[in-house]
Amino acid sequence: MEIYEMSLGELDRGLEAGTFSLNEIFQSLVSRMEAREKVTQAFVELDIDRVRSEIALIDRHGRATSISGIPFGVKDIFNTRDRVTSYGSSIFEGYQPVSDAAVVSRLRSAGGVVMGKTVTTEFAYFFPGKTRNPHHPDHTPGGSSQGSAAAVADFMVPFAIGSQTAASVIRPAAFCGVIGYKASVAQFPLNGALTLSYSMDSLGFFVRSPEDLCLLRNVLLGVSPRAGALKPRKIGLVRTPYWSELDSESQSAIETAGSDLAESGIEIREVEVDGREGVDLVDAHQIVMAFEVSRSRAAEYENQREKLSDQFTELVEAGRQISFQAYEQALKQRDSANQRLRTELGDYDLFLTASAPGEAPKGLSSTGDPKFSRAWNLIGGPSVTLPAGKGLTQLPLGVQLVGHFNKDDDLIAHASWIQQNIQLGTSN
Amino acid sequence: MEIYEMSLGELDRGLEAGTFSLNEIFQSLVSRMEAREKVTQAFVELDIDRVRSEIALIDRHGRATSISGIPFGVKDIFNTRDRVTSYGSSIFEGYQPVSDAAVVSRLRSAGGVVMGKTVTTEFAYFFPGKTRNPHHPDHTPGGSSQGSAAAVADFMVPFAIGSQTAASVIRPAAFCGVIGYKASVAQFPLNGALTLSYSMDSLGFFVRSPEDLCLLRNVLLGVSPRAGALKPRKIGLVRTPYWSELDSESQSAIETAGSDLAESGIEIREVEVDGREGVDLVDAHQIVMAFEVSRSRAAEYENQREKLSDQFTELVEAGRQISFQAYEQALKQRDSANQRLRTELGDYDLFLTASAPGEAPKGLSSTGDPKFSRAWNLIGGPSVTLPAGKGLTQLPLGVQLVGHFNKDDDLIAHASWIQQNIQLGTSN
Repeated sequence: MEIYEMSLGELDRGLEAGTFSLNEIFQSLVSRMEAREKVTQAFVELDIDRVRSEIALIDRHGRATSISGIPFGVKDIFNTRDRVTSYGSSIFEGYQPVSDAAVVSRLRSAGGVVMGKTVTTEFAYFFPGKTRNPHHPDHTPGGSSQGSAAAVADFMVPFAIGSQTAASVIRPAAFCGVIGYKASVAQFPLNGALTLSYSMDSLGFFVRSPEDLCLLRNVLLGVSPRAGALKPRKIGLVRTPYWSELDSESQSAIETAGSDLAESGIEIREVEVDGREGVDLVDAHQIVMAFEVSRSRAAEYENQREKLSDQFTELVEAGRQISFQAYEQALKQRDSANQRLRTELGDYDLFLTASAPGEAPKGLSSTGDPKFSRAWNLIGGPSVTLPAGKGLTQLPLGVQLVGHFNKDDDLIAHASWIQQNIQLGTSN
Repeated sequence: MEIYEMSLGELDRGLEAGTFSLNEIFQSLVSRMEAREKVTQAFVELDIDRVRSEIALIDRHGRATSISGIPFGVKDIFNTRDRVTSYGSSIFEGYQPVSDAAVVSRLRSAGGVVMGKTVTTEFAYFFPGKTRNPHHPDHTPGGSSQGSAAAVADFMVPFAIGSQTAASVIRPAAFCGVIGYKASVAQFPLNGALTLSYSMDSLGFFVRSPEDLCLLRNVLLGVSPRAGALKPRKIGLVRTPYWSELDSESQSAIETAGSDLAESGIEIREVEVDGREGVDLVDAHQIVMAFEVSRSRAAEYENQREKLSDQFTELVEAGRQISFQAYEQALKQRDSANQRLRTELGDYDLFLTASAPGEAPKGLSSTGDPKFSRAWNLIGGPSVTLPAGKGLTQLPLGVQLVGHFNKDDDLIAHASWIQQNIQLGTSN
């Protein structure tokens, strides 16, 4: 196993055991980067010498946390005080914030080293950046956290920060074949990060192991690391009203996971969340998102519309057409779904569902369909996508595990158990 | 009645009727400012010539909305692209953001004109700015939105923007004798404004009439203006566990309001929200606030601690001592209180309670006690404070009306009815 293939936990243990040094980790990641970045283009820009000297400084002072001296990727919607932050938009070309985003600051003060800013779609919405899927350069890596997903998948950093408002962590993680975690709304500070939807934006991480999510939550929130994996007792299998839009390999990955989980003694029941009583949570999500984006990004739309993509302009204009009553109605649908998850579905440990419609589509002009995360994102709880083998064209698939609001640690512990005990996806 | 005493609605109607011009409004406010600002010191800095020319430009193009050409105050935690934004902190002395905060941008694009940035405490927490209470310069105006409250109370602008995490709108509005409105969490975009608590920060407004809140919600959110006031059917009177800490005039203002409301045919019942089953929501609020501030302001604490006040440093350090379990527990207490408000207390239209412990305390080194808003702020719904006469030393008192989460328009309509139909406070 190459060093660059290791998870954060493996790196930390290797460093503590003296198996390799911080400099060897850095060299291993840089060699991988030199081989791959030209094709994958995960980073906005790189300054390897600066990273080297930051790591050397930490090496001299000694490591204090599990991430000390470890390089990571930062989606370019998070402010950095010493690197340009452009939010994927020409409006902010060359913009240099005065402070780090809160999560970046915390990771750095714990010794983490910013390897570089990773490519984002324009304002974390649809208009894509330059990043390509590490598994096939003619395919999208997904979006909006495309550079972060690809940088981890292509072994250029062990972890990277992303964010999600519709499917911006779960989808690119699934398309790139890595673990993605989208946190409950307001689990982490998002100040110093671009706002899209003030009721739905969430922090996310791309990692190689569920354990790494615990390490990061320990550094950022002080969560005590758990005793590892936790076997779920009851799981809801959610086909969604869009089951027929999933490719058959993705359907099979979910169904097989369901029967394997049942075989291991876990109670599995099919449940509906979206699509009940005529309520379309995907629609509700789109209403909330467009309404809020038209308010949050008012300044760019009002003052520099000519520098916005057609997609973004259409989103803002759609949001301006939505009445406050329609917006309120969508929030009420969210509240009802949430209430049902707390009560009627409260004894389900998690929900097993699709991460994306299938493999990453061909072409770089679109980042794929976010539909399979919209309803969950509206509800606001945590999600984890786990790699689930490959599809027909040998590109990665994922399955999504959804937890209860603010029970992120339970979800991560369950995801850890599932990853260790269930063979996800076909073995091709 | 002087023009500067008028509400936004009155100004709008006067302009439409041709009773006075935009320039006359401007001159009236400026004359008031020249008479008062030297004492009150509500603004960080003023550039009257710029305001004059912005209004003249709008005058030439014609008014498009109810706020076209109307000057307003902006708490200096909201970014402005053409004015320094310092968040009340020497760390950001001379800082010039590149964009307007989302709400500022929307108000400006609707024709509103920024009169100036208003004084805030340091990072919207406790360390006070220079503003004095318009009713007595030796007394605090309250905080954190002290300049916005004082600027409206002293008739220098008809409305101003504030924000609240503990009591930063309700308390200064009560101390200064104006109407304050603290919105439900996530009713308005807060991007481009300083973050303190990512689960509790809310937008607020200081106005002269509940009607003005409808006008502002129409401009910002597209809420259709209602047919005015709405009589409540059932009101909960909440003494809180801290009743004995209220001065007797404030107790009497609440009790008299309760009996007058009952006399008008509204069902009034005493209810407890905080302090049930050993749960202290004021404590829970302090835990959530300290924990989240220690994360959201990590960058300033890590990098420029020497420029923080002792109060702010203590807040961050207290937050770092709080375990994630204690934080989770406080959020669960919030969720339980919220659940009870939705169910058991769901048929109460609003809750009548204290805005502050009494009159504005003497001295400028403290902004007074936020205790009476903390529990409500934790819960996250809307509040309105209405002026309720004066206390023993002839300084203003207020009573607080609290609504259900995301039912801000109902609360405003009820507050409007109460203001029109009930004599609040003694008539001294």
